[in-house]
Amino acid sequence: MYLTEYINGHVHLEESDMCESDGKLFLNEAFSVIMEEILHKGTDSKEKVCEWKDPDQLRALLDLDLREHGESHEQLLQRVQDVARYSVKTCHPRFFNQLFAGVDYHALTGRLLTETLNTSQYTYEVAPVFVLMEEEVLRKLRSLVGWSEGDGIFCPGGSMSNMYAMNIARYWAFPQVKTQGLWATPRMAIFTSQQSHYSMKKAAAFLGIGTDNIFIVQADESGSMIPEDLEAKIMQAKSKDAVPFFVNATAGTTVQGAFDPLNHIADISERNGMSICMPLGEEACCFPKNTNICANATYLFQQDKFYDTSLDTGDKSIQCGRKVDCLKLWLMWKAIGTHGLSERVDKAFALARYLVEEMEKRENFKLVCKGHFVNVCFWFIPPSLRGKENSPDYQERLSKVAPVIKERMMKRGTMMVGYQPMDGHVNFFRMVVVSPQLTTKDMDFFLDEIEKLGKDL
Amino acid sequence: MYLTEYINGHVHLEESDMCESDGKLFLNEAFSVIMEEILHKGTDSKEKVCEWKDPDQLRALLDLDLREHGESHEQLLQRVQDVARYSVKTCHPRFFNQLFAGVDYHALTGRLLTETLNTSQYTYEVAPVFVLMEEEVLRKLRSLVGWSEGDGIFCPGGSMSNMYAMNIARYWAFPQVKTQGLWATPRMAIFTSQQSHYSMKKAAAFLGIGTDNIFIVQADESGSMIPEDLEAKIMQAKSKDAVPFFVNATAGTTVQGAFDPLNHIADISERNGMSICMPLGEEACCFPKNTNICANATYLFQQDKFYDTSLDTGDKSIQCGRKVDCLKLWLMWKAIGTHGLSERVDKAFALARYLVEEMEKRENFKLVCKGHFVNVCFWFIPPSLRGKENSPDYQERLSKVAPVIKERMMKRGTMMVGYQPMDGHVNFFRMVVVSPQLTTKDMDFFLDEIEKLGKDL
Ligand SMILES: Cc1ncc(COP(=O)(O)O)c(C=O)c1O
Ligand SMILES: Cc1ncc(COP(=O)(O)O)c(C=O)c1O
Repeated sequence: MYLTEYINGHVHLEESDMCESDGKLFLNEAFSVIMEEILHKGTDSKEKVCEWKDPDQLRALLDLDLREHGESHEQLLQRVQDVARYSVKTCHPRFFNQLFAGVDYHALTGRLLTETLNTSQYTYEVAPVFVLMEEEVLRKLRSLVGWSEGDGIFCPGGSMSNMYAMNIARYWAFPQVKTQGLWATPRMAIFTSQQSHYSMKKAAAFLGIGTDNIFIVQADESGSMIPEDLEAKIMQAKSKDAVPFFVNATAGTTVQGAFDPLNHIADISERNGMSICMPLGEEACCFPKNTNICANATYLFQQDKFYDTSLDTGDKSIQCGRKVDCLKLWLMWKAIGTHGLSERVDKAFALARYLVEEMEKRENFKLVCKGHFVNVCFWFIPPSLRGKENSPDYQERLSKVAPVIKERMMKRGTMMVGYQPMDGHVNFFRMVVVSPQLTTKDMDFFLDEIEKLGKDL
Repeated sequence: MYLTEYINGHVHLEESDMCESDGKLFLNEAFSVIMEEILHKGTDSKEKVCEWKDPDQLRALLDLDLREHGESHEQLLQRVQDVARYSVKTCHPRFFNQLFAGVDYHALTGRLLTETLNTSQYTYEVAPVFVLMEEEVLRKLRSLVGWSEGDGIFCPGGSMSNMYAMNIARYWAFPQVKTQGLWATPRMAIFTSQQSHYSMKKAAAFLGIGTDNIFIVQADESGSMIPEDLEAKIMQAKSKDAVPFFVNATAGTTVQGAFDPLNHIADISERNGMSICMPLGEEACCFPKNTNICANATYLFQQDKFYDTSLDTGDKSIQCGRKVDCLKLWLMWKAIGTHGLSERVDKAFALARYLVEEMEKRENFKLVCKGHFVNVCFWFIPPSLRGKENSPDYQERLSKVAPVIKERMMKRGTMMVGYQPMDGHVNFFRMVVVSPQLTTKDMDFFLDEIEKLGKDL
């Protein structure tokens, strides 16, 4: 059938289906739209962080439907414009909603270069630059935590890093799991603090260990794991014939930014026969020794290649095709150096302290806890609740404040910050200072704006 | 300490650490380098696919070391240039090495837009456009396979899609696995063909099921699963008290491009109490019904939000932060329509048929099998081996041909194509026709070049 079509000329085999120059023209024009709409307007504090639309409105505006026939150059440019326009500007100086924010132009350049090169990290053959670069960046990251040898991998995010760490700890404890599965091992126990990230639950479920086999360790008021309770929970697990194999310690918890006592936890773990992996930052997972979880695919990892096949590192990954993740970090690091990176950290700390001090000067802010990291968790106490701490419905009424302020904020588009309840604390805001572009002015604006949005509450 | 530093003015809290305009200038100049080095030169068939360097040479050229201090604008632009220069040009018309190739300018625009917006797919709040867009693209993908309802997710690649499918099938068969782990279930059995992708092994190991619990089903000469053997293997598993819960059927195997008999396998699966998931393409995984594998993180998925929180779809994912993957596909689809996509498929089929016909005209090419898809697996029979099929060392000598040609090809940089051995077949080349830019001229070049590279062998 295809041959007939070909002979009849319905399929044009002599020509490429898109004119290269049209394609490049589109890309160039779209890049101008991206620069203008996202990087100029989106980083301008006078513009909105987000042009809020209800889902139904937005569906109508975007016309997402995928049809039989394609659209014109102009229509498609308009699509690019619309996507940019109605998306949240995470690069905006008043985007404080997640644990990421701001824009680093060198890192962004690295990302665009990665996307354009569009290769996969599995073999030296198709990713010569990135195989060597990943090796170097991981070596450097390990050296920052004091490991002179070991292994590691970049993967799509912190949750995946945690899964890698859990999988490797399990493999070290019970190597037969790789071939025979969990039926060939005793029940295993995971330890993590009540303040740890919910990716622990996902990992336990996905890896077949089950969420019931997570033993939750208590944290103190600041959010830091209590080592005595870890010991108690290890005893408890053992008494139930579950074998401790994994303690998840966090440096910078999701909500409060607390640090678990790493050295103390390491001692307890080692005494109980557990080893150490380290999901670093959000995207890299490092181990102090080599791992062996490969599957040996002969179609990618031929041993008779003409170069050193130990550089075909794809077999370390649970992915096959794997995006290049090291370039953005590498280019940013080259641009500002270790010194520049550490200055950014210092600055974020100092701005967070500044924010806390300013809050303490104002009577309508109350800290949830005194943290030491860049997370600042606080309640806004509106005029109607001031001095009413002892009234019976205080907590109930306070819990409604953050959602209302949040809704107003989104609809005005002036800024974005998240809120949540936590262990008996009703809804509070969590501000995390991460963007290198921030200044004290942004902190002042933040406080003023919350006051403005909540002044009638 | 930080406060003191701040007061002493060592940390400049009044200024942003990078001048916005410097950053934008860098990005703009780097974008020109990307256009020139990758998209102009890289797509020019007169340029090299890859400028091959040995790892040691390349390490020296790249200077990957991360230092204390940053570099100048010019040095950094040179870095961008070097990364582009020494990377493989997967957009080159003679890159045939993997299952991806070529460049689609609309998809690339979608990728650059995604990277610049730099948001995460988890909530409507931070990704309003992309939550709705993903929903629409998944709906469309499901409709292509005939499902009018169901669920799905984009994830980082086909291997991850396979893991999702396996995890969901397991959850449907034994929901207690989520909380109690595999110790609360009988041993489970996975069925997959001998030609299936090695991600099955990785998934079985990672999910705690174990690679020994994979039952390998035989495939016929063309690479397609033999349903009678599937039935036999299911019997075998049952006789060993392993419960069948998952059959992996492939539409387009990795090496031969074979299609497993999907309907027949579906019948057998249903008769044996198994349900159907479908990892689609390389990045989307679709299910015919809704799933319930969430972990309910209160800090992201507050139920008192002011919009329909069923749009906060992040909880479906095993990731937390999740890159936007739908935009590139959506924009390309908008650009050429369903019709344009299907024309590309027709064209790839026709070009693959053209290649096979041309090979049959030349005496030094021998097909491994007659496939029906876009993969063409073949041996190049060099002059010295022609007519020697019966000599005792024929296979041994033939196995050495592809690696030598490959090495020469890489060093010349004229093209890239992969080779591998397979089940008693010695090393052969696998050519996969996927790029929409290809024409019959590229196919002719491919054959001529292999002949040229191997003419003295
Ligand atoms: C049939 C099949 N399934 C899954 C995969 C894995 O996809 P990915 O590389 O995106 O993980 C591949 C990759 O070649 C494949 O050929
Ligand atoms: C402490 C911690 N670990 C892991 C994660 C998950 O990271 P990701 O979103 O990259 O999966 C987060 C995300 O907030 C986190 O705060």
